Amino acid sequence: MESFLSEAVYLSVDPYMRAYEPRLKLGTVFIGSQIAKIIDSKSKQYPVGKYVVGQFGWRSHTITSEEEAKDPELSVRVLPDFGSLPLSLGLGVLGMPGNTAYFGFLEICKPKEGETVVVSGAAGAVGSLVGQIAKIKGCKVIGIAGDDEKGKWLINELGFDHFINYKKPHFAKTLAACAPNGVDCYFDNVGGEMSSTVLSQMNQYGRVSVCGAISGYNSSLSTLPKATITQGFIVMKQLKIEGFVVLRWADRWMEGIHQNLKWISEGKLKYKETVTEGFDNMFKAFVDMLQGGNTGKAVVKV
Amino acid sequence: MESFLSEAVYLSVDPYMRAYEPRLKLGTVFIGSQIAKIIDSKSKQYPVGKYVVGQFGWRSHTITSEEEAKDPELSVRVLPDFGSLPLSLGLGVLGMPGNTAYFGFLEICKPKEGETVVVSGAAGAVGSLVGQIAKIKGCKVIGIAGDDEKGKWLINELGFDHFINYKKPHFAKTLAACAPNGVDCYFDNVGGEMSSTVLSQMNQYGRVSVCGAISGYNSSLSTLPKATITQGFIVMKQLKIEGFVVLRWADRWMEGIHQNLKWISEGKLKYKETVTEGFDNMFKAFVDMLQGGNTGKAVVKV
Repeated sequence: MESFLSEAVYLSVDPYMRAYEPRLKLGTVFIGSQIAKIIDSKSKQYPVGKYVVGQFGWRSHTITSEEEAKDPELSVRVLPDFGSLPLSLGLGVLGMPGNTAYFGFLEICKPKEGETVVVSGAAGAVGSLVGQIAKIKGCKVIGIAGDDEKGKWLINELGFDHFINYKKPHFAKTLAACAPNGVDCYFDNVGGEMSSTVLSQMNQYGRVSVCGAISGYNSSLSTLPKATITQGFIVMKQLKIEGFVVLRWADRWMEGIHQNLKWISEGKLKYKETVTEGFDNMFKAFVDMLQGGNTGKAVVKV
Repeated sequence: MESFLSEAVYLSVDPYMRAYEPRLKLGTVFIGSQIAKIIDSKSKQYPVGKYVVGQFGWRSHTITSEEEAKDPELSVRVLPDFGSLPLSLGLGVLGMPGNTAYFGFLEICKPKEGETVVVSGAAGAVGSLVGQIAKIKGCKVIGIAGDDEKGKWLINELGFDHFINYKKPHFAKTLAACAPNGVDCYFDNVGGEMSSTVLSQMNQYGRVSVCGAISGYNSSLSTLPKATITQGFIVMKQLKIEGFVVLRWADRWMEGIHQNLKWISEGKLKYKETVTEGFDNMFKAFVDMLQGGNTGKAVVKV
């Protein structure tokens, strides 16, 4: 099998990495996606000069065989043509976060026009796209995040209907005021007590897409936090709650990329990137992102 | 519209009543199903001598018009022919609990042969049937209840593979020992910390049918207990969790009754009733049942 050598150009830092971290052995390469330029190659499929996106991890240079490239764990793809848009979007709206929003929201929440949608982690790479896709589908959208500046961006730039700062008091009352007819769909990046409150205000046959659980990522199994139980709401309102990993839709991958690209070109889908410069700043960028320092997609430029 | 007068013969006490109780106004008739004999009638559809099952509540005598009988809130049906089986089964295995087990387990958990199924509230009217239906479908069945005598009944009479007494220590370890390959389906009558533990041991694409939440029934919204958060497991294992109210399958009602009747006649489905005598003992029977005093279906004989 012919191999190629690629050099990292942009690397991704994402919340899900925190959840996988405890399962990684000391001394292994940390996981993650990157955009890399092919700088040497014996492969016709992967020629010099092309850009690829793949799960190479936190490393600057990678040698990959054509066979390894097909491995779902690496899932190396030649980057599609983004026109005049920046390459880094292959890690964001035109990559895994974009498809996470597209498939994870539409396939699991199945939103209907006029419904009320709540998104937690709303200013993040995925949440900011989910809210906009919900608006495209004719829903009323309530975004939850922990910073008023982010809230202004959600409302003024992205067209969210309401913003709730979960760090302020009276979260349940504020949510009830924003969603007087109850919540139909909930796209959850956070989990924990916030989610218990949202579930308590859901309507009959409400749908919950569980994308992440950042509220529990700093805990081991035995020290996970507790939150108000929700089974009573789940029964009474006949709620459906489903967790997902976006690779479930690997066979439809390009459908999501092309749809998001189309929405961007129509001006319906906006994105923001928080770019940190320098490979050596990967860890700082990762921690900043987990602490909510980013708006939109957090990437590192080598 | 022609009316009929019916006299209660058997009344039902069920866990779900506890959940509805806080929403009932003082002075209204308490909710619930009963088997009643028609003792006077101007209706050809509901003639004297026939038995009906309906949501008449905790009352001895009821006058119902033909129109009222059709109201889903009352849902009065002439009792089908049970052959030599007791009439009271119309409140249990051949009534709402039977259909709750049949539809709520099969339609939501969609069990496959060889899978591992966990049932909480396993010795109750619904749970004891769910475990047996899971065995009929070729699954390995683990029942959870709070009394070793009940456990013996589940294993020796109903054919459950394992029984776990949740009141004993090391629940998580015991579950892991009973389900070394993980849990595929969970039929939940209880909720709370027990459910967090079961969810932490579920397999990829596991399904959870949430039928009840007895662990939270004694609390108001603001005093609901807390339990370990589960969003991390829901995402990582791509779990699907769905709550239901059995009336969702009202249009297929007789399918469940006939299938359960067939399984009884084939010796595949066994039932037990805990019968309390006397209308005046309704409240005592209700509280006993909530405290786990019953095995199988709790009914009151007038």
